[in-house]
Amino acid sequence: MKSEFYNQRLGRTLLGAGLFTAALALPALAQDTGTDAGTATDAASTAGADMAYIFNTLLFLIGGFLVMWMAAGFAMLEAGLVRSKNVSMQCLKNIALYSVAGIMFWVLGYNLMYNDVAASGGYFGIPGPKAFEDVGGSDLETGYSAASDWFFQMVFVAATASIVSGTVAERVKLWPFLIFTAVLTGIFYPITGSWQWGGGWLSEMGFSDFAGSTIVHSVGGWAALTGAVIIGARKGKYGADGSVHVMPGSSIPLATLGTFILWLGWFGFNGASQLAMGTAGDVTDISRIFANTNLAAAGGVVAAVILTQIFYKKVDVTMALNGALAGLVSITAEPLAPSAGLAILIGAVGGVIVVFAVPLLDKLKIDDVVGAIPVHLLAGIWGTLVVPLSNSDASIVTQFIGVVAYGVFTVVATGILWFVLKMVTGVRVTPEEEAMGLDMAEVGVEAYPEFGTGSQRM
Amino acid sequence: MKSEFYNQRLGRTLLGAGLFTAALALPALAQDTGTDAGTATDAASTAGADMAYIFNTLLFLIGGFLVMWMAAGFAMLEAGLVRSKNVSMQCLKNIALYSVAGIMFWVLGYNLMYNDVAASGGYFGIPGPKAFEDVGGSDLETGYSAASDWFFQMVFVAATASIVSGTVAERVKLWPFLIFTAVLTGIFYPITGSWQWGGGWLSEMGFSDFAGSTIVHSVGGWAALTGAVIIGARKGKYGADGSVHVMPGSSIPLATLGTFILWLGWFGFNGASQLAMGTAGDVTDISRIFANTNLAAAGGVVAAVILTQIFYKKVDVTMALNGALAGLVSITAEPLAPSAGLAILIGAVGGVIVVFAVPLLDKLKIDDVVGAIPVHLLAGIWGTLVVPLSNSDASIVTQFIGVVAYGVFTVVATGILWFVLKMVTGVRVTPEEEAMGLDMAEVGVEAYPEFGTGSQRM
Amino acid sequence: MKSEFYNQRLGRTLLGAGLFTAALALPALAQDTGTDAGTATDAASTAGADMAYIFNTLLFLIGGFLVMWMAAGFAMLEAGLVRSKNVSMQCLKNIALYSVAGIMFWVLGYNLMYNDVAASGGYFGIPGPKAFEDVGGSDLETGYSAASDWFFQMVFVAATASIVSGTVAERVKLWPFLIFTAVLTGIFYPITGSWQWGGGWLSEMGFSDFAGSTIVHSVGGWAALTGAVIIGARKGKYGADGSVHVMPGSSIPLATLGTFILWLGWFGFNGASQLAMGTAGDVTDISRIFANTNLAAAGGVVAAVILTQIFYKKVDVTMALNGALAGLVSITAEPLAPSAGLAILIGAVGGVIVVFAVPLLDKLKIDDVVGAIPVHLLAGIWGTLVVPLSNSDASIVTQFIGVVAYGVFTVVATGILWFVLKMVTGVRVTPEEEAMGLDMAEVGVEAYPEFGTGSQRM
Repeated sequence: MKSEFYNQRLGRTLLGAGLFTAALALPALAQDTGTDAGTATDAASTAGADMAYIFNTLLFLIGGFLVMWMAAGFAMLEAGLVRSKNVSMQCLKNIALYSVAGIMFWVLGYNLMYNDVAASGGYFGIPGPKAFEDVGGSDLETGYSAASDWFFQMVFVAATASIVSGTVAERVKLWPFLIFTAVLTGIFYPITGSWQWGGGWLSEMGFSDFAGSTIVHSVGGWAALTGAVIIGARKGKYGADGSVHVMPGSSIPLATLGTFILWLGWFGFNGASQLAMGTAGDVTDISRIFANTNLAAAGGVVAAVILTQIFYKKVDVTMALNGALAGLVSITAEPLAPSAGLAILIGAVGGVIVVFAVPLLDKLKIDDVVGAIPVHLLAGIWGTLVVPLSNSDASIVTQFIGVVAYGVFTVVATGILWFVLKMVTGVRVTPEEEAMGLDMAEVGVEAYPEFGTGSQRM
Repeated sequence: MKSEFYNQRLGRTLLGAGLFTAALALPALAQDTGTDAGTATDAASTAGADMAYIFNTLLFLIGGFLVMWMAAGFAMLEAGLVRSKNVSMQCLKNIALYSVAGIMFWVLGYNLMYNDVAASGGYFGIPGPKAFEDVGGSDLETGYSAASDWFFQMVFVAATASIVSGTVAERVKLWPFLIFTAVLTGIFYPITGSWQWGGGWLSEMGFSDFAGSTIVHSVGGWAALTGAVIIGARKGKYGADGSVHVMPGSSIPLATLGTFILWLGWFGFNGASQLAMGTAGDVTDISRIFANTNLAAAGGVVAAVILTQIFYKKVDVTMALNGALAGLVSITAEPLAPSAGLAILIGAVGGVIVVFAVPLLDKLKIDDVVGAIPVHLLAGIWGTLVVPLSNSDASIVTQFIGVVAYGVFTVVATGILWFVLKMVTGVRVTPEEEAMGLDMAEVGVEAYPEFGTGSQRM
Repeated sequence: MKSEFYNQRLGRTLLGAGLFTAALALPALAQDTGTDAGTATDAASTAGADMAYIFNTLLFLIGGFLVMWMAAGFAMLEAGLVRSKNVSMQCLKNIALYSVAGIMFWVLGYNLMYNDVAASGGYFGIPGPKAFEDVGGSDLETGYSAASDWFFQMVFVAATASIVSGTVAERVKLWPFLIFTAVLTGIFYPITGSWQWGGGWLSEMGFSDFAGSTIVHSVGGWAALTGAVIIGARKGKYGADGSVHVMPGSSIPLATLGTFILWLGWFGFNGASQLAMGTAGDVTDISRIFANTNLAAAGGVVAAVILTQIFYKKVDVTMALNGALAGLVSITAEPLAPSAGLAILIGAVGGVIVVFAVPLLDKLKIDDVVGAIPVHLLAGIWGTLVVPLSNSDASIVTQFIGVVAYGVFTVVATGILWFVLKMVTGVRVTPEEEAMGLDMAEVGVEAYPEFGTGSQRM
């Protein structure tokens, strides 16, 4: 099921377990002609493989539930950053997209990403009947449970879809959005994912993206960008005279909560992308990843706080929140190799990118409601390109090729999809519905019915 | 302390550890007359038992804190679904009930559920002086720490009490509710729990309820139902002409947050109900449980979204949230055996149940503020009855007997208790207090004092 | 890097691993002159050390992410307890302080707390170039990954800073607060922390504070107290006639959410302070800590609920929330040794302290917006002084000396710092800004712009 490359990434564990076994095997080798102790050693090495299997699987489960929790983070972040008349819609979209992503990644996506990618020449996996099997001997050889791996990979694809949800908020129609999500998570993301994590052509070329700055975040960002362009800006956002109308979100504490949830979930996102915890070396790497991930986020916050103070004379809390997220996205391509100081710096540059890119997008009249394009696309590109600075196995040329490849494919594929949806079903509510708010128009349940933010539900 | 049945459920670990030990023991057996290496093997097998003990206990701790977190999920879900004048009360009830449940389950409940249930013929455990002891040799033999098991079981009983809290919201008096909670968590739930998880008569009969669709959720649902009937509907909910007045909740994002919290916690609820993680087989089972649990919830969401679109022409976000929860409850009786596709289907039927049962309850003038009866009672029954479809050890007759037995006992016991409370202390606030809101009447602290949703606090 | 004392605390693991190794080594000792099996045993003991290393590190990682999550808990608790015009500021302060704390604890704090404290006579550690290193042989000997330990210690210092944030809310200026945070987390906390957890003079004397009732919570409380005194009360809080004006918080559900988050995080705070999970004994201790921590919080809630009912005729939900937190702080100094019943009692006294101390502080015109001084300072002192009741290794005299030492140092140091900041930058916004709210004055982003709680942002 798993590609060679995937096992290669996992190689550290298998290698670790191997070393572990080797250590245990040492006496056996040393006494070939001796007693039966060699047999005892074999048994002990089985025990070692078992332990590694449990630890590796446990890592996927813990990492998986932390990344699953990020779905709540995106929901709260986006609910806080849209206006109250669109909050129920945002909540609905986020729980629905997480559900659709999970089902599609079981139906189709997982195999399209991981199953025998070499057979297609490294461009996509082969759809098969089942994404994960019952426990079997092959599982023990692989070093982890197939279902735990499915779970861990599934929550990643859901993160990609969540990114899109924020950008196109406040004007997208529900059903076209859900259809878009189904195709993105069942087909597009898995295809490009196979290029690298499925062991396809980019991994063969030496592309390096540890936990998905490009594979997850920039893909979500590109899909958000094509959506924002094709769907168009919210009514009243940009004046004919070039003016930009600020549309403040409904709740800063919800947005803050969402950011903290995402920050917490990111320890699973980056940490469990080590893919193995069965050796001292692996768990030590995971520890470094935790520390670097936290420091990069902190760097993003501090950079955004200082910059907005300097440029706007006040500290913009939404920029601080997006600074944290940009720091996290930036370190995701390589959270292990950088020193702590470099991790802070990489994250800080992510924060700088956000502060400058948000107004820039407005200049381009690209209406990104929550700032997802600067955070996930631009910081994702930055994080991918900076990998060679700390990881000597990576080359800037290959990193660049990877960034462009993911960008071209995702822009074309999602652009066509958004366009087809626009033609077939429409992707945007009517101006009246937009003015009324999507909660009344599409959801039928207001977010805060008692607070006078719209007419009563009935 | 633990019943045979419990150990039987845990048998997989002990067996696993046994196999593990056996593998290690092999060389010893093979060289009986040989060197001292056999002693080394014994030592190594001790190591194996130790490792299994740590993994099993760790599973209870991780599962336990995830289920503890569900207390926050219920609090947020219910706070979001009541009107703002009752939100502080709902917050108070939920933190207080979690506290009361914990203390009562230590004082009385745990032993009543697990201690020597056979002595009573399988109908209840024997109250003892202490729920958990210091570490000792017996712990190592049991395969997990007693305190970790107490913690994990305690958070389950708290979940049961939380279910009741939602249904009877907006009119129940605080202190009678807390007394009800104390009796439910200290006596009623433990008694019926002993029938199955304590190794009592239902487990002898072959009843199957992996993580508590019936034992936890339907019990909470029955207790909520008797409460709703005896306390009566909120003023103005049902018109004399048979009309139903919709009373929208105060905050959809809080309800959404609560649902995501519950979904996250459910990985602990179902996953750690495997009760063991010390072998590759156990952790593989836990992985399947994670995947199936997630897919069932997703199925519930998708079903509710599609159905409400068809029937109401708009997607009801509260139905989507309750669809997720119904999917989760439905898979809880057997999250391991179903294939992934069946798990989606089981969850989807849960979602369908919610969409149809919510208006049905209103027809019956049973006022369930948050929809807990459809979600926990009806989907709980569904989940229990569908077990034989995937688990050939279960019989539909026995499943039916179990469902009825839990229903009869809980309806009678909680019915009497609610009735006695009604007679002795009253269970309902005055109409004036209900109109004013429980926050002013009973809590003295408004939830949102600045937002004009009632008169100022002072 | 680590002090002797720290290793002494960790002794249980090392000892455990030692015993474990010893058991494995037994045959080797028994057959000195025998076969090569002794070598096999050495290899197996290496495996044991490896397993212990993974478990210990995993404990730091899980405990660390749970305590990191407490940063969100403080943010939500404080956002809920301030008025809506100051909510964005509170969100900003909390994410910024967590970031600043992390960077400062890497730049300076960690080494000042743990590096060769003996060299200074036990009063502070020696600043070094790096807080944590790459994996190496020394790590394996220490028994855990250095980066995981850094991560776990870092989230503790962030908790200390969060405590201050709540007390001085609604009138403190952002930048002086952040400077204060940098010095507190980079210098003051590490210095006093080194006295005990760095193996300094107090640990030599036999002071006992398992997870930081004094070292973390009372230090935060003292720093909050000096801040409250030097910054002064909010305008209008205290009338010239001695009257106290209640200023209700903006959102009880957010405060409740924050409390649940903190409760959840506390399992990491106290549980992972066991510092080791590689033996059955350690994980059993962690289980007891989980159970006791939960019961103490429950005791605090129940005490506060009963007391406020008696004294005020209504149950104050904010007191119930602070009762939970006070129970948690109270048990933090010794969560392992008490029986479950004693844990409930210790927590309940914490709850009583809060109910009485909140009005007392108002009598003294010390304006503590969220009640952090009763919760963290007073319950922290109580928890520290009660340790000898259950832990016979602790002496009440030494506990008292410790409490006073931490108090004197922190009051003097933070008092001077607040005073210097007052002179140099000012620590308080202008009366106009205070009336307008800090969100408009300092952050430029209102928390709820659509809800009419202030003028529109632009």
